[in-house]
Amino acid sequence: MDKKKVFILGSTGSIGVSTLDVIRLHQDSFEVVGITANRNIELLQKQIEEFNPKFVAVRDEKLALQLKDNLSKDITLLIGNEGIISGTRDADYDILLSALVGFAGLQPTIEGIKRGKRIALANKETLVVAGEIITQLAEEFNSELIPVDSEHSAIFQCLVGEKHKEIEKLILTASGGPFFRKSREELENVTVAEALNHPNWNMGNKVTIDSATMMNKGLEMIEAHWFFNLSPSKIDVTIHPQSIIHSMVEFVDGSIKAQLSKPDMRLPIQYALTYPERLSNSFTNTKLTEIAELTFFKPDLTKFECLQLAFDVMKIGETAPCILNAANEIAVQKFLNNEISFTAIPELIKEALDKIEIKSVVDLETIVECDSLTREYFKV
Amino acid sequence: MDKKKVFILGSTGSIGVSTLDVIRLHQDSFEVVGITANRNIELLQKQIEEFNPKFVAVRDEKLALQLKDNLSKDITLLIGNEGIISGTRDADYDILLSALVGFAGLQPTIEGIKRGKRIALANKETLVVAGEIITQLAEEFNSELIPVDSEHSAIFQCLVGEKHKEIEKLILTASGGPFFRKSREELENVTVAEALNHPNWNMGNKVTIDSATMMNKGLEMIEAHWFFNLSPSKIDVTIHPQSIIHSMVEFVDGSIKAQLSKPDMRLPIQYALTYPERLSNSFTNTKLTEIAELTFFKPDLTKFECLQLAFDVMKIGETAPCILNAANEIAVQKFLNNEISFTAIPELIKEALDKIEIKSVVDLETIVECDSLTREYFKV
Repeated sequence: MDKKKVFILGSTGSIGVSTLDVIRLHQDSFEVVGITANRNIELLQKQIEEFNPKFVAVRDEKLALQLKDNLSKDITLLIGNEGIISGTRDADYDILLSALVGFAGLQPTIEGIKRGKRIALANKETLVVAGEIITQLAEEFNSELIPVDSEHSAIFQCLVGEKHKEIEKLILTASGGPFFRKSREELENVTVAEALNHPNWNMGNKVTIDSATMMNKGLEMIEAHWFFNLSPSKIDVTIHPQSIIHSMVEFVDGSIKAQLSKPDMRLPIQYALTYPERLSNSFTNTKLTEIAELTFFKPDLTKFECLQLAFDVMKIGETAPCILNAANEIAVQKFLNNEISFTAIPELIKEALDKIEIKSVVDLETIVECDSLTREYFKV
Repeated sequence: MDKKKVFILGSTGSIGVSTLDVIRLHQDSFEVVGITANRNIELLQKQIEEFNPKFVAVRDEKLALQLKDNLSKDITLLIGNEGIISGTRDADYDILLSALVGFAGLQPTIEGIKRGKRIALANKETLVVAGEIITQLAEEFNSELIPVDSEHSAIFQCLVGEKHKEIEKLILTASGGPFFRKSREELENVTVAEALNHPNWNMGNKVTIDSATMMNKGLEMIEAHWFFNLSPSKIDVTIHPQSIIHSMVEFVDGSIKAQLSKPDMRLPIQYALTYPERLSNSFTNTKLTEIAELTFFKPDLTKFECLQLAFDVMKIGETAPCILNAANEIAVQKFLNNEISFTAIPELIKEALDKIEIKSVVDLETIVECDSLTREYFKV
C-alpha cells in the first residue's frame, strides 16, 4: 500500500485522537498532512510535534494567534471556520477524516467531496442534515464515503461483496445508554453527571448525551438511510447492551450478517483508512466465551422519545432532520448547562418541528438557512 | 437467472428433502434432473412424481428392481453405488447437491468435480477424508465447491468480498448437542434415545449422534481446514447453545463477522444453489429481540473426547482423518445398535488410530484402502 496522506478534521476530539493512534501504529501506510482543533491547543501542540503536519487549523481566533508564535515556518496556520474550510480545499491529501462535532463539519467535508477525495465520515450531521446533497455530490465528484461510526462501519463491512438490491433490512444496534433500565418517570430527574456516564464507549459530551437520549441512534438511523440509500422502512434499531455486535444486515433470503468486536473506535477508523484492505493490529482481542452473553431488546419509543422523533423525521424527510438536529444540539447544550431537564430535550425538539416550517432541500443554502432559523428560534 | 439443473445425491435424506423444498419454491430458477436414494423408495416414488427427474438411482438393488415396474420409460433407473456414480457422470446438470451420508458420497462427488460442475457439498466425508485430493481436483477441473453445512455456509458468506490472507481465525459454533450440560460421568449411561434428541436441528441419526459426541464439529473443523485452505491453528470451536450464529470469521484487524438466522437448513442449501445471488423466501424470520439472549462457552475437550481427537487428527493429517472418520462411523453404528456405550465411541476411534498405520495420501486409492482397512479392523 502506498503511504496515504490524511487530513484530520477535529484531531483533538476522541475520534481524532483515536485516528492518530491508528496512524501511529501504521506509519508505513499513513502520514498526517493536516489537523484541526476547536480550542484544545495544548493537545494540538503535542500532535504537531509528533506528526509534523503541513496544515494546522484552529477555530478559536485568539487561541490560534497564541499558537502562532510556537509554530515552525513550514507549517501553514489557518484560523476560524474559514481557515478549516480552506485547509480541506488547499491541502494535498488522499483521505479526509471528518470528525468535527455538529453542523460545523458539513462545509469542510463538502470541500473534500468536491475534490473527489475519500471521506472517512465520523461527522453525523453531514448526512443527517444534508444527506441528499452530500450523496449526490459524492457521486458527481466520484468521492468515496466510508463510515467511521462503529454501527455504519459494521453495516459497510457486512455489505462487502453483497448486492444492494438483496438487502432486506439494516439493524442498528444501540447500547441503550446509561438509562436503558430506568423508567420514564425516573428519567425526569437524572443529572448531567449520570447522563455523561456511558457504559461502553468513551466519547465527547454531546455524543454521550445523545446516547443517553438515544438521539444518537436516531441520527445514525437517518445517516444509514442516506449512506446505504435505503428507504426508512428498511432501517431498524435493536438494543444490545454489551455493544459487541456493532450492527447487522438482513438479506432477502433471511440470512443475517453481523460485525462484532469489543468496543474500540480504532477498529472502524482503521477500516475507513485501509478499506478495502485490513491491517493487523492489537487493539482488541474479542473472546465471546469470555463475554459469555449477548442480549437484545426492543427499544421503548415512549421512553426514548428522541428515537421516535428521529424515526418520524426520517420518514418526513426534507428539512425535518435539519430542524431536529439543530434543536437537539441546542437542547443538549441547555441540558449540559443545567438550564433544562433531561426529559425537556425531546420537548424542545418537538416544539421546533412544530413551529419551524419544513421545506424541501433545494441546495446547501436551504440547509444553512434552516439550521440558522432553528437556532434563532431558541435565542428568543 | 437461467434455470439451473440440479442433481441431488441423497434426495430422501434430511438435506435432500430440504433441497427439494427450496427448489419447489423457486421453480423458475431450478429443475431437478437426478435424485438418488439408499432404501426409502416410498419417498423417492413421491419425489419422482412431483419433480419428474431424468435420472433416478437406488443403492439397494432389490428395492431398485421393485421401483422399476412403476417407472415411466423416460426415466433412467440406475442401481447400486455404481449406478449412483454413473448418474453423476452421465446426467446433464449444473449443480451436484452432494448429500449422501458417509464415505459413499466421495466417489460420485468426484465425478461431478471432474466435470467442472458446481458442487453444493453437504457430505462431510468428502473433505474430511480426501480434502487434499478433492481441493486439488476442484482447482484442476475448475469446479466450484460451495458449502451446504450451516457452519461452512456461514463462513463462506462472511468471506464474500474479503481476502484470504486477512483471515485471522475461523470460529465454528457448536450447539453442544443434547449432552452439553451433562458431566463426563453422566455420559457413561446415556441412551440412544437421549442421544438422538437434538435441541436445535432435525437431522439424520448418524449426524445427530455425531452432534451428541461433538464429532460432528470435529469433522466440520477438518472440513473447514480444507474448504478454506487454512492451517489447523486458525480453526477454533465455540459452544453456542442457541444455534443462531452459525459461525464466525475473525480478521487480522480484530473485526469479526458472523452469519446468523434461526436454524433452518433451507437457508444454506438455497445459498449454495443461488450463490452469488440471494433469492427471497419465507423460511425464517429471525428476531433477535425475541430470541433475547445468545450465549457462548468453551468446549470441554476432556468431556467431548471426540472433538479432541478431531483436533489431533487435523494436525496429524495424512490418512489420520480417514481412520477417524471410518472408526467413528462404525462406533456410531455400534452405539445405535446398543452394542457399545456412548463413551465407548471415542475409545474405539482411539484404538483405530493406535492400531492402523497412518500413511501419506498419494491418491484416492490410499483413502479407499485406509477406509477399508479400518472397517476390516473392527469386523474381527
